Amino acid sequence: MKLERILKLADSLKKENIGAVLVGPSPDLEYLTGLTPSHDERFKGLFVLSDGSFFYISPSLYLEETQRGLGQDAKIYVWYDDEGFLGALKQARDDFKLEGLRIAVSDGISAVHLLDIQEAIDGEFVKGNIIVGELRMIKDAEEVDNLRKASEIIDEVVKDLYEFIRPGIRERDIKRKIEELCLEKGASGLSFDPIVASGPNSSMPHYNGDSRVIQERDIVLLDLGCKYKGYCSDTTRTFFIGEPSEKEKEVYAAVLEANLAAEAYVKEGVACGEVDKVARDVLKKAGLDKYFITRTGHGIGVNIHEYPNIVANNKQIIKNGMAFSIEPSVCIPGEFGIRIEDIVVVNEGKAEVLNKFTKEMLVI
Amino acid sequence: MKLERILKLADSLKKENIGAVLVGPSPDLEYLTGLTPSHDERFKGLFVLSDGSFFYISPSLYLEETQRGLGQDAKIYVWYDDEGFLGALKQARDDFKLEGLRIAVSDGISAVHLLDIQEAIDGEFVKGNIIVGELRMIKDAEEVDNLRKASEIIDEVVKDLYEFIRPGIRERDIKRKIEELCLEKGASGLSFDPIVASGPNSSMPHYNGDSRVIQERDIVLLDLGCKYKGYCSDTTRTFFIGEPSEKEKEVYAAVLEANLAAEAYVKEGVACGEVDKVARDVLKKAGLDKYFITRTGHGIGVNIHEYPNIVANNKQIIKNGMAFSIEPSVCIPGEFGIRIEDIVVVNEGKAEVLNKFTKEMLVI
Repeated sequence: MKLERILKLADSLKKENIGAVLVGPSPDLEYLTGLTPSHDERFKGLFVLSDGSFFYISPSLYLEETQRGLGQDAKIYVWYDDEGFLGALKQARDDFKLEGLRIAVSDGISAVHLLDIQEAIDGEFVKGNIIVGELRMIKDAEEVDNLRKASEIIDEVVKDLYEFIRPGIRERDIKRKIEELCLEKGASGLSFDPIVASGPNSSMPHYNGDSRVIQERDIVLLDLGCKYKGYCSDTTRTFFIGEPSEKEKEVYAAVLEANLAAEAYVKEGVACGEVDKVARDVLKKAGLDKYFITRTGHGIGVNIHEYPNIVANNKQIIKNGMAFSIEPSVCIPGEFGIRIEDIVVVNEGKAEVLNKFTKEMLVI
Repeated sequence: MKLERILKLADSLKKENIGAVLVGPSPDLEYLTGLTPSHDERFKGLFVLSDGSFFYISPSLYLEETQRGLGQDAKIYVWYDDEGFLGALKQARDDFKLEGLRIAVSDGISAVHLLDIQEAIDGEFVKGNIIVGELRMIKDAEEVDNLRKASEIIDEVVKDLYEFIRPGIRERDIKRKIEELCLEKGASGLSFDPIVASGPNSSMPHYNGDSRVIQERDIVLLDLGCKYKGYCSDTTRTFFIGEPSEKEKEVYAAVLEANLAAEAYVKEGVACGEVDKVARDVLKKAGLDKYFITRTGHGIGVNIHEYPNIVANNKQIIKNGMAFSIEPSVCIPGEFGIRIEDIVVVNEGKAEVLNKFTKEMLVI
């Protein structure tokens, strides 16, 4: 239980005129309590009220680890498989006087459960994903250290992959190698299912297949990350099997220029949308902006995607302690894709780039 | 795109007086379309209307694989990172006349997105997770074959684990071995993160740690499954390192009796709740029912948990083609836990037990 974070959250609720927030299994819950239950059909969640009180609703079969995580003094309402969660919720509603409150709903709650909750509690329900997200946005020194270490590990993995990848192996062989290397080098696991997109698959930004065999003259786009003490890394490098074509070289140079320009532009006081614009302008100049179909970056911390978004028009001002990706890309449908991604932390007013593995064009 | 399933779903909607159903990234979506996009902060989903028409809302960066999955004729509303999904949703709302409809919301939609959708569409929103779930509940011959093969693979994995497990290795070594063996034997992957719970960890039904070192006189509870052609297996066996105690032997015998009694009781025409009662009564007779804190079983198919639930008081009548787990357990907090789980398919009126690995008490 992270009581200090709960109290900060209660302060935010007061400021936003919100009576309570409901947090489901999600990085928000992990950040507030250390609990990491699975997100499934059995409802579970933490309610935090604006007076700093809180309670948890737990299915019976998660009770032991929930009690251990929250401590014996925490109020936990338990429900059993043969009765459903609404009885426990209604008891809590009465005990904590939730009726009539403005209740924010954070990540990790499913729509199906919300429909039940809206029936059981006569209150006003509003989106609450930004409230905890904003608390998480500014990292303290310990959090930054963990992010640094997670990036250091993943850089070493990329280095080993450069030696490992060769024609004839499958995308899934590389995926398995990534997991193996991460664990070997001290990560607790992956921060997301890695993307290993070869040849034409590289043009799909979130490709999730794994069966293609690597061939001569392929592009191999690797997007991967690990977790270290609960914190994520996330990096992308694009390798070439054999000599790249002229077009591939031109695109690579433009994406690299966009990556470097955006990273250099990151400063305290600048808006997130301006950083996006810097990357986009470089690709526009090269006539490639119509193939840059994603945002420039996303925040990172206990979760792989969190605030702030480095996206067009985002007025959010960059502050010390923020951590996010810079990952301009060019995806030409049916042809190929190139992306170069680093994590940066805003430190003493400017970007500290956590990923150190070379961004020069590498041919295998 | 599985048009036949879409049309069946439209029929169900008509019967239930529902105008449209929204299906998010979930096994439901996979069952209806073959699509398996990630469940994340970018809204995406399939709307099916009661007249059999349908459309999909997709973030730009999933467009290529979505088009490939749904076919070029499908209506897809695309949205870009810098604008959010509500513009696309409102356009679709007007084109398909969603206003005023009763709209069912199925799995894979988050509460945060539902709150936005409720603002954008003036309709009545109801829970829809059962509608697609009921379609999925009765398996056809091809689906049963895939379930059989998935169980066959996992039985071989359990056999190999019996040789592999020994004192001195960590829970996570066993987890990694499970994944390796599943892939080796032809599975496409795991159906869930395996539970490897040793010693006192075995008393937590959904334990998700992995750091404990296996010791002499441990219980090792293994709950694992793989996927084969999109279909899941799920089995639990409990091994003993060295001679078990008298209490462990007694508990094991009772759990095994409950497992066998419930499997023998499964018949067409019987209610799911009665099967649960048979297992529970065996453990009651042994004075252990207060430690049986979970349901007796859950349906299985493209997802690891689906309908029917084998849970107290469930009046759902068992029919040919249903597939579900039978997994009675005893979890004594702080001491140990024992569970024995098989998948059964209802075939010619009675249970065909898909898992063939022995349920005799095995000592390593």
